Amino acid sequence: MKKLLKTILLLSTTMLLTVHASENKTVKWKLAMSWPKSLTPISTVPLRVSSLVKEMTNGKFIIKVHGKNTHKAPLGILDMVKNNIYEMGNTSSYYYKGQDIATTLLTTAPFGLNNAEQYGWYYYGGGEELTKKVYDKFGIDSYPAGNTGVQMGGWFKKEIKNLNDLQGLKMRIPGLAGEVLSKLGVNVTNIPAGELYTALDRGTIDAAEFVNPGLDIKMGFHKIAPYYYTGWQEPAAEMHFFVNQKAFNKLPQTYKTILKVAMKVATSEMNTAYFNANVEAWKQMKTEFPNIKIKTFPDEVLIAMKKSTDEVIAKYSKDSPLFKEIYKSQQNYLKKAREWTKISEYKYITTSNSLK
Amino acid sequence: MKKLLKTILLLSTTMLLTVHASENKTVKWKLAMSWPKSLTPISTVPLRVSSLVKEMTNGKFIIKVHGKNTHKAPLGILDMVKNNIYEMGNTSSYYYKGQDIATTLLTTAPFGLNNAEQYGWYYYGGGEELTKKVYDKFGIDSYPAGNTGVQMGGWFKKEIKNLNDLQGLKMRIPGLAGEVLSKLGVNVTNIPAGELYTALDRGTIDAAEFVNPGLDIKMGFHKIAPYYYTGWQEPAAEMHFFVNQKAFNKLPQTYKTILKVAMKVATSEMNTAYFNANVEAWKQMKTEFPNIKIKTFPDEVLIAMKKSTDEVIAKYSKDSPLFKEIYKSQQNYLKKAREWTKISEYKYITTSNSLK
Repeated sequence: MKKLLKTILLLSTTMLLTVHASENKTVKWKLAMSWPKSLTPISTVPLRVSSLVKEMTNGKFIIKVHGKNTHKAPLGILDMVKNNIYEMGNTSSYYYKGQDIATTLLTTAPFGLNNAEQYGWYYYGGGEELTKKVYDKFGIDSYPAGNTGVQMGGWFKKEIKNLNDLQGLKMRIPGLAGEVLSKLGVNVTNIPAGELYTALDRGTIDAAEFVNPGLDIKMGFHKIAPYYYTGWQEPAAEMHFFVNQKAFNKLPQTYKTILKVAMKVATSEMNTAYFNANVEAWKQMKTEFPNIKIKTFPDEVLIAMKKSTDEVIAKYSKDSPLFKEIYKSQQNYLKKAREWTKISEYKYITTSNSLK
Repeated sequence: MKKLLKTILLLSTTMLLTVHASENKTVKWKLAMSWPKSLTPISTVPLRVSSLVKEMTNGKFIIKVHGKNTHKAPLGILDMVKNNIYEMGNTSSYYYKGQDIATTLLTTAPFGLNNAEQYGWYYYGGGEELTKKVYDKFGIDSYPAGNTGVQMGGWFKKEIKNLNDLQGLKMRIPGLAGEVLSKLGVNVTNIPAGELYTALDRGTIDAAEFVNPGLDIKMGFHKIAPYYYTGWQEPAAEMHFFVNQKAFNKLPQTYKTILKVAMKVATSEMNTAYFNANVEAWKQMKTEFPNIKIKTFPDEVLIAMKKSTDEVIAKYSKDSPLFKEIYKSQQNYLKKAREWTKISEYKYITTSNSLK
């Protein structure tokens, strides 16, 4: 009888544990961000994923988020996720152009797709498959993590009236855009974000490109450089999540779905949050500093920028077949998508403008 | 001993059931759509919510989706969800203007917010709270369910060259826009969608406004009315989910979060899916029918439309304080948001156009 009792107890305990194991397995992950937790609304995205995943699994799937001050490797997220030091990362794809130049095009491209067009390309124009082609070799799955929308062309102390005004201009502008301007005579420097304000104030640099009002307002450039140029170089910069493939494959099916859904929701929320941050910051800037002048580069400068962009793209396309494939895929989608953009969103604003 | 055995068995069964009850309660809901399941990508949204909720709860929360052919009440979703005949609905808010005229502004407004601006208003400009104010009295929570983007101004058999061309024009155009055009001399008719093609073909009507290429292509208007006018009347038509509040409050906390997250993800997915549907449909239409002419209404017509819109808005604002409050809230957000739209998305396309 004692034996039977023991058997029953063991059996019922096993049943209980089985329920837990299959449906409510406890999983603890860590996520490394390229930024500090204060860089909202960009840093809001991984923090939101963490809290959503916890809620949706009844507290069983925990993702601890580390800001750059914890791991001290803001540009090393790819390696840390590849080596499973962190199961997840939240970063910018183009930081890893040293590992693969094709990573840059997954963030954005000069004169490339706008926000709606880029998501169209990603989900329906081959973008998802090409992203997989870039990151599979690192054992990583990459997912969208929110978009800044159109970035501004930068803050300038003096107006740019022609191509000649670019000669010897000292400017902070990273990424492909920096290479493009370098070919046009700009003296491109890469000063860390923390030192930019002082450099611009003291004349160490003449101009600084950062993001757009939502984040630029924290830098204070508008107080010392009154010409704010409209954008051409990063029309829809997307952030990315990295997930270690082996860690992901070990998750119960339910958690896999929950994680993917949480990333997509947080991404969508960031797009609205960032749009609103731009709206509010731009309103505040121009109220407090009514002398800010919105400028668009003159046609001769834009034409030269486009030509220089084509040269930079051609160079990397020669170096990397994958870069070439992604650029061509994006351009194919852009060609048809822009036709729709022009008669819908664009024409609607034109129409509304004409009534003011 | 037998008693002890029984007690142990009972106890362990109870423990098992408790685990199930608290974390894995089985819930079965029904959702009624205003459309047939074939109306993709609009109908994709509730179907996706159903499948995501099922996956994320390990098959325990089931939402059965009924198309309009099952319940036969495409315009009766509000009543059915209010009375808990269906726990959820998927519909257009403006169908219920008979119950409350303020419902119309939650869908879209003539000359109103575009897609990004409308989500900005909804989440950061008071839209969510005002939506609650509209639907609380029905015991319903309402959530966004995907946006069509800018709708086109309609298909016309003859070009509209001036205000006089609107006099006596027989046109199908529903909602507030119909009232606006009616004041300008248009003979607004409300022919069911299924009969529209024949009516336009036979000259029973001279023009038809439906949606935009993604759905218009299924109607075939482009084969018989070559003038396709750009939009002014529905710059960002949002679909909506309705959820019965009492049913929602009975859900376990985990399921509440999962349902809300699933609705938001499916909404975000639809926005990209619909954008892409427009891109592909527009490409196909103009390839197969190169004689389609994209037109924008002349300034004198647009100015008259705007004036007429203001009159319609003023009339309903007088009738309904809530309509007035929502319109004012949207206009306040539009004013600041449009400043950002103009120097970002809009200027970027202008810049790109100048390089072609």
